[in-house]
Amino acid sequence: MAVIGLDLGGTKLAVALFTEEGSLLYKERVPLTLLQGEATGALIADRITALKNRFPETAITGAGICVPGIYYAKTGNVWCPNIKGWENYPLGKRLSEACGAMPIVIDSDRACYILGEAWKGTAKGCNNAIYLSVGTGIGAGILSGGAVVRGQHDIAGAIGWMALAQPFQLPFKQYGCFEHSASGEGIARYTRELLDTMNDYNGLLRAIDAERLKAQHVFEAFEQKDVLATAVIRHCVQFWGMAAANLVSLFDPEKIIFGGGVFGPAQKLIPDIREEAAKWAQPVSMPSVLFVPGSLGADAGLYGAASLVLQKAIPYPNHDQ
Amino acid sequence: MAVIGLDLGGTKLAVALFTEEGSLLYKERVPLTLLQGEATGALIADRITALKNRFPETAITGAGICVPGIYYAKTGNVWCPNIKGWENYPLGKRLSEACGAMPIVIDSDRACYILGEAWKGTAKGCNNAIYLSVGTGIGAGILSGGAVVRGQHDIAGAIGWMALAQPFQLPFKQYGCFEHSASGEGIARYTRELLDTMNDYNGLLRAIDAERLKAQHVFEAFEQKDVLATAVIRHCVQFWGMAAANLVSLFDPEKIIFGGGVFGPAQKLIPDIREEAAKWAQPVSMPSVLFVPGSLGADAGLYGAASLVLQKAIPYPNHDQ
Repeated sequence: MAVIGLDLGGTKLAVALFTEEGSLLYKERVPLTLLQGEATGALIADRITALKNRFPETAITGAGICVPGIYYAKTGNVWCPNIKGWENYPLGKRLSEACGAMPIVIDSDRACYILGEAWKGTAKGCNNAIYLSVGTGIGAGILSGGAVVRGQHDIAGAIGWMALAQPFQLPFKQYGCFEHSASGEGIARYTRELLDTMNDYNGLLRAIDAERLKAQHVFEAFEQKDVLATAVIRHCVQFWGMAAANLVSLFDPEKIIFGGGVFGPAQKLIPDIREEAAKWAQPVSMPSVLFVPGSLGADAGLYGAASLVLQKAIPYPNHDQ
Repeated sequence: MAVIGLDLGGTKLAVALFTEEGSLLYKERVPLTLLQGEATGALIADRITALKNRFPETAITGAGICVPGIYYAKTGNVWCPNIKGWENYPLGKRLSEACGAMPIVIDSDRACYILGEAWKGTAKGCNNAIYLSVGTGIGAGILSGGAVVRGQHDIAGAIGWMALAQPFQLPFKQYGCFEHSASGEGIARYTRELLDTMNDYNGLLRAIDAERLKAQHVFEAFEQKDVLATAVIRHCVQFWGMAAANLVSLFDPEKIIFGGGVFGPAQKLIPDIREEAAKWAQPVSMPSVLFVPGSLGADAGLYGAASLVLQKAIPYPNHDQ
């Protein structure tokens, strides 16, 4: 018995077939050039059909899809801001029609990240674990008492909006305080702000065109002990530590897993983040919480998507419409 | 069929008998003078037996107990810092031995507050709702997807430790940033700090012996538009708003319920707290979240205790030891 996982990203669709025990049988990555609504839906349906045809002898239990946005469990619709026409796109209905009797299960990227790590990664065996994803944006997949925290509108875990620093600043309105301050974009933005004010700084980051400056440049300069990069990264460590502390105090988890593009280069900062968090967090919970990088890397969403088929999650066609 | 609820507070034990539909049949409050461990356990067992004897014709399904601290579901033990000898007291075992075949169910005060409001109060019908209790300390009872968020060690919801303001200050180590800043004790403490620095202030609060100053005095002075009290309350509204915003962004709840001794007098500030929260919170969740006072007042824990008997919660004797 096998399960299909699909992870829809900004520039590619990852497709995989796993055994129900989680062994990878096949994986492909399809580049996405035109992120148009209906075409993207058709592409996903097409890859599921192609995978079924490629493995005609394999009994496939179902297909799970990880989407970069929100999955509305009640309707089977999705909201994905980076895909034109997916404001409230009926992905569940679309795929169920295309894939016949095969059960289709969908969830958000952040839910899939933690479910993937819980299935075959570093959260295996955990009932209470949190995946903190820091990339262009920031989100959290939260497993509490063995279930993903979904909220009333399936948008729980919007941790990029966490309020961590007074006073309120207008840019928080657009991204949220935490995401503004410590996402990949936030790192670049804060560096640009400091470049504007630190007139006597003439280090590595001054040489880069400010508009092209990315978090990666800051991490590279930090490795070289650049003073501006160090200030930016210390600033981020404080935010990451405070946010992690708040997750410890609220959820009393076994593990906080750091993932996304920024962790990556920020993985080596996890001990510093833990030290910052320990200052703020509920002191009875804190000593037993492990702060770890994800073990599935960029495949966490793909594993999570496949694991959806094996969850208690109800596949789309059985939902009340 | 009826259920017993007991709410153990700092100075009294509230005892009640409810129908399974939640109608109050009987209520008494027993003052607690000696908060000694074994004597308190014996008192609770005694009141349960007395209540059974008082209603000999009534079939009683079980007894639920709300404790001011932590209930360890795996062992049936409790940790209550205000009760001498209850660092890891086997309350479940003690009551089960004393009460014969009657199922005994125990939970923490913050879990009972939200379960009480969900049973017969303002959270009735909610699957996602949070009780923010602000009194001497601060805690949160969190209902997510219909279940109480418990965490790995039954200490989730320790929201008094939420990090909301940089930089870190040493007193946060003792109470947590949020509790230090905006609990009942925090209000008094911050007022005393301002009294020490605002030498030109000669308002209502200057007349009160600083050591005897309580949050209640500050609320009374705030009603009189006292300038110092106004500064303190505005400071608290910012913290309460930021904390509520973080609950909105993380949990996407239907309702945030404000309770505890401070709400009370702070109930009329709920619109201001909502306005502050709306600046920070995830903007898709925020418009639909109701900010409301609890409707059961000081009885929320008592109702919640009784409702434990009707929950899927496993009564003590069935736990693995």
